[in-house]
Amino acid sequence: MLHPDRLFPADPATRALARELYAAVAGQGIVSPHGHTDPRWWGENAAFANPAELLVIPDHYVVRMLISQGVPYEALGIGAGAEADPRAIWRTFAEHYHLFRGTPSRLWFDHALSEVFGLTERLSAANADAQYDVIAGHLADPAYRPRALYDRFGIEVIATTDSALDDLAWHRMAQESGWTGRVVPTYRPDAVIDPEAEGFAQNLDRLAEITGCDTGDWQGYLDAHRARRAFFRSMGATATDHGHATAQTAKLAEGEAARLFGRVRAGNASAADAELFRAQMLTEMAKMSVEDGLVMQLHPGSFRSHSPDVLARYGRDRGFDIPVPISFTAALKPLLDVVGMDPRMRLILFTLDETTYARELAPLAGAYPALRLGPPWWFNDSFEGIRRFRELATETAGFLNTVGFNDDTRALCSIPARHDVSRRVDSAFLAELVISHRLDEAEAFELAPLLAGGLARDGYRL
Amino acid sequence: MLHPDRLFPADPATRALARELYAAVAGQGIVSPHGHTDPRWWGENAAFANPAELLVIPDHYVVRMLISQGVPYEALGIGAGAEADPRAIWRTFAEHYHLFRGTPSRLWFDHALSEVFGLTERLSAANADAQYDVIAGHLADPAYRPRALYDRFGIEVIATTDSALDDLAWHRMAQESGWTGRVVPTYRPDAVIDPEAEGFAQNLDRLAEITGCDTGDWQGYLDAHRARRAFFRSMGATATDHGHATAQTAKLAEGEAARLFGRVRAGNASAADAELFRAQMLTEMAKMSVEDGLVMQLHPGSFRSHSPDVLARYGRDRGFDIPVPISFTAALKPLLDVVGMDPRMRLILFTLDETTYARELAPLAGAYPALRLGPPWWFNDSFEGIRRFRELATETAGFLNTVGFNDDTRALCSIPARHDVSRRVDSAFLAELVISHRLDEAEAFELAPLLAGGLARDGYRL
Amino acid sequence: MLHPDRLFPADPATRALARELYAAVAGQGIVSPHGHTDPRWWGENAAFANPAELLVIPDHYVVRMLISQGVPYEALGIGAGAEADPRAIWRTFAEHYHLFRGTPSRLWFDHALSEVFGLTERLSAANADAQYDVIAGHLADPAYRPRALYDRFGIEVIATTDSALDDLAWHRMAQESGWTGRVVPTYRPDAVIDPEAEGFAQNLDRLAEITGCDTGDWQGYLDAHRARRAFFRSMGATATDHGHATAQTAKLAEGEAARLFGRVRAGNASAADAELFRAQMLTEMAKMSVEDGLVMQLHPGSFRSHSPDVLARYGRDRGFDIPVPISFTAALKPLLDVVGMDPRMRLILFTLDETTYARELAPLAGAYPALRLGPPWWFNDSFEGIRRFRELATETAGFLNTVGFNDDTRALCSIPARHDVSRRVDSAFLAELVISHRLDEAEAFELAPLLAGGLARDGYRL
Repeated sequence: MLHPDRLFPADPATRALARELYAAVAGQGIVSPHGHTDPRWWGENAAFANPAELLVIPDHYVVRMLISQGVPYEALGIGAGAEADPRAIWRTFAEHYHLFRGTPSRLWFDHALSEVFGLTERLSAANADAQYDVIAGHLADPAYRPRALYDRFGIEVIATTDSALDDLAWHRMAQESGWTGRVVPTYRPDAVIDPEAEGFAQNLDRLAEITGCDTGDWQGYLDAHRARRAFFRSMGATATDHGHATAQTAKLAEGEAARLFGRVRAGNASAADAELFRAQMLTEMAKMSVEDGLVMQLHPGSFRSHSPDVLARYGRDRGFDIPVPISFTAALKPLLDVVGMDPRMRLILFTLDETTYARELAPLAGAYPALRLGPPWWFNDSFEGIRRFRELATETAGFLNTVGFNDDTRALCSIPARHDVSRRVDSAFLAELVISHRLDEAEAFELAPLLAGGLARDGYRL
Repeated sequence: MLHPDRLFPADPATRALARELYAAVAGQGIVSPHGHTDPRWWGENAAFANPAELLVIPDHYVVRMLISQGVPYEALGIGAGAEADPRAIWRTFAEHYHLFRGTPSRLWFDHALSEVFGLTERLSAANADAQYDVIAGHLADPAYRPRALYDRFGIEVIATTDSALDDLAWHRMAQESGWTGRVVPTYRPDAVIDPEAEGFAQNLDRLAEITGCDTGDWQGYLDAHRARRAFFRSMGATATDHGHATAQTAKLAEGEAARLFGRVRAGNASAADAELFRAQMLTEMAKMSVEDGLVMQLHPGSFRSHSPDVLARYGRDRGFDIPVPISFTAALKPLLDVVGMDPRMRLILFTLDETTYARELAPLAGAYPALRLGPPWWFNDSFEGIRRFRELATETAGFLNTVGFNDDTRALCSIPARHDVSRRVDSAFLAELVISHRLDEAEAFELAPLLAGGLARDGYRL
Repeated sequence: MLHPDRLFPADPATRALARELYAAVAGQGIVSPHGHTDPRWWGENAAFANPAELLVIPDHYVVRMLISQGVPYEALGIGAGAEADPRAIWRTFAEHYHLFRGTPSRLWFDHALSEVFGLTERLSAANADAQYDVIAGHLADPAYRPRALYDRFGIEVIATTDSALDDLAWHRMAQESGWTGRVVPTYRPDAVIDPEAEGFAQNLDRLAEITGCDTGDWQGYLDAHRARRAFFRSMGATATDHGHATAQTAKLAEGEAARLFGRVRAGNASAADAELFRAQMLTEMAKMSVEDGLVMQLHPGSFRSHSPDVLARYGRDRGFDIPVPISFTAALKPLLDVVGMDPRMRLILFTLDETTYARELAPLAGAYPALRLGPPWWFNDSFEGIRRFRELATETAGFLNTVGFNDDTRALCSIPARHDVSRRVDSAFLAELVISHRLDEAEAFELAPLLAGGLARDGYRL
């Protein structure tokens, strides 16, 4: 099912070199500095329930494709009155597996079924039941519990993404268990920064409770962030993450910011106030990063829960987050005016709008010491997407203003597959540079392990 | 003039496979679900007048390129006092044929001259007269009349694009003639939907006359659309087509829509009213599509008749329609909120702004069951354009959320050439997927005939 | 250090043809119609001071990359209290030379060190001093003075870019020296057109002094431009250049323009006034181009001096000019309404936003006789950038609506390298067209010398 030369260039000489470069990094440990695995897995280390719950239901890439071709959510076990039999859900998935031809989901699934579960045939309606049984059998085996998979996948460190209000109890459980795996949290404060987030006022009340800071006051509110960041750092965090709709930042004068916070806290914020507050808070977070050294990540440009119908009936993260056009040059300027030249600052930028790679992100990261480019994100974390990123960003930003790969996933079994795809595409890209004499072979062998993990470790201060 | 391996990849192994895939679909009948051939051709089946009138004057791709290099419209037989001798026009074209190097027009013309007219030398100033004579000679032959060409080209079905006010008399003539060709109309109501269209008020008066509905009233106006759609369906239509400047849609409350229509009908619409009315009407058309099953097509993003000078002196469709940046994510939301999840709905989206392929269109079509992606359109219906479409859209939307190819042309003799280019580029793309082990060979052979026609037939409910 | 096959395609047959096409143009003289070499070099013909001042300090591509990785400006000899020893600056550069892997700067530098200075090893910390000595030694040699390099590089004509207020004394000195080199100025009036330019009012006073025209009056101001353009033409200029933030143009009625100028001249212009005045002046410049035949160039879309901190401490052109999204279709319309169809007009368009190539620029230049497409600019003047330009623009604009290559540089020693990169990438592109049978081999050999210089000479009326 998995050809050893997959994703390598067609030209024989280039393929041969790509193969060698890949061989040099294929066994390298996995550094996963940004992801969405459930901390509870690492804390409890319980067995996964069944193939559908592990592999199908929570994978929004998989779910959305079936929905787009007319499969109802209910048949995938989602929503009121949904199919409850995981085997039936698995069958539905298997019957539609041909939809994924040409997509990264297909590469990731083939890899997981083959490398994680030892299957040798591609999934189909015909073998759905048999494969279900094999996978279900494995899941009952302690060798398929989360921590065992962590070891088997060669993970060296993995970051989760956690609400600012989270008590990190699962992280604590994992750390106190004597297990040697390294699972670190990431400070994601959107719920206490976005005035339009659900339950924002209550979130700020809760933030006050947890920290003992007065979140009715601008300075108290900032102190509460400082306290939570310190707590996250004490639990191993090296980074924060911010999922704003736009990249807009602001640098308001002290009094102005305080008055804006007053309106926001009182629930009187207009839409413009809310946008300005989010913008100002990115700059506040950046200033705290200068103080405490947490690497800042910005993930803008997704129109979340585009379908109100899907949101109401099936919830968030069901495949209906759609990218919008975005620009960074003017939007980031207020923040960069404050921290852009500061050698202590590190801000990693992600985009869903590939037009910004060459036009804005590479020129920005190729100038400001504070900036680094995150890897291709979400829809662009794919063969073509990674290739386009390298082609569009490298000439202006070079390699060392990027931070390697991150898998950004809650699909545990796809983690090795995703890093494998990235390493293959990067090996192919480096091979093409060498064959066209833009790079020496020795240089390519120096860069390959950096792209496969070294830059991630360095970029995220891990 | 036509190399059998044209448009195939350079790598020998990939080329060999592309050749095989192409061979499997080269003889497949042509499904042409969206185009601009003149219905009169099919109804009357008269001989074409001469080479210039058939091949040069109406082809806006050809005309604009000569204009851009300083050839006056008049030399191409267009405008007051224009050259009247078709042979002189042909000579001007032939003298400038080198301008088309590297363009799709060159591929299409070489193909037509070779495959349709049996010429073996590339057109040039030196052979212009001789080729003119050969083509003119053929045009006098009944084997070169429209219906004979339809058969010879292997067309299985072809759609025209027709005003909502059209009586479809030529379609009726073709249907009642006993001819077995299948020519179907498409409902294009822009002239009775766009308040800024020339003669809008008279168009609505005429719509009332034809349908017996009161187009002075919002419900009567909608009923008039329903009546015309039913008539088009009775004549074989399976689709509507909408050529708006933007993708903006709206979902006004009933009363609000009626009041807006009142202002529009009275000729009191502001520019904002006009845009809102077009937006609302896309949603109304979508709701009717849910009722009557007509597939909806949206073609936004062209700034029509950019040069007022050209418009005034030479008319519309003279090569001066220029694309603008466009976005779908927010613009389509009102319409999708209403019909996006409805399994009866089908909306095919086209774009002239390729940045939307990966950023918006593939994520939208890879989620909403109502959506499909139309093929590369207009300037992008080309070797590089089709390749970019596949590379940018496939990983997120897969193949089955696309609807194959359409030729979108009024240039009858280019139809086989255009489908041939598309089949070759798709064969090359599939071969690259196989050679890089992203797809099995058997899967590529399954997909090729779908891309060459099967998806068009299914996508347009033909 | 320089492989003879660099930048050629991997496929052996394509590479062989690219090699032949390149061989046919490799020795062709250099036509450099747009650049930023210092006119003083050509006038005085003095020796260059040292390697750091020639090769490092003024190269904003080089400087920004080192800054982005934490090197302080001061270590590069820039700013108050900066490093004064050129050898120390050179060492810092050499220690960071690995940062340029995969970038065009690396290609250009390797080429210059090898071909201009005869070095055989790639620059590194280890050989920094030795290479410094070799280069410094050469710079003392008359064979390395500007005019000798002009001859050695095979330059046939080179344009500089000069303020509208410049007396062109260095040009005069070069012309009166008996030297046979052809160095022509370019009329760049931004400082007397942009109301937000530093010292705008004084610039207009100075313009009045130089020309004897009343720049307090709209017609007098326009006459002053006419006078300066005539002077520039008398000194050999064939072109103007305009570096606006956007592509916005306007066509105000006479009285409206005069009133706008009144506000601008009085220093009462709002931001909207300033933008409108720049827009109107592009159209005024275009009308003058119709009269006097100067080719007009428009370079929009750069957010200059993005970091106020860098601007204040280190000045302009220090690597902090960042592109922004841009659109031409609507913005250029007012100007094109006036001069777009005029056969006397020539306007060459550049962009930093590659999304405009296929979407707007190729359709515009493939229609309007007045328009031509400039080569990939700045960040896009690179292997991947040139390839993307050809792939995105050629199918719609053809080759003859482009104007060949320009090096756009103040880095004298990189001029041969830049033209070499362009010729190699274009040879590769043409070879790919031939191997995929989109072009005949003979046609490729006809086009190659045009792309290498012929189109530049013709496009700029040189």
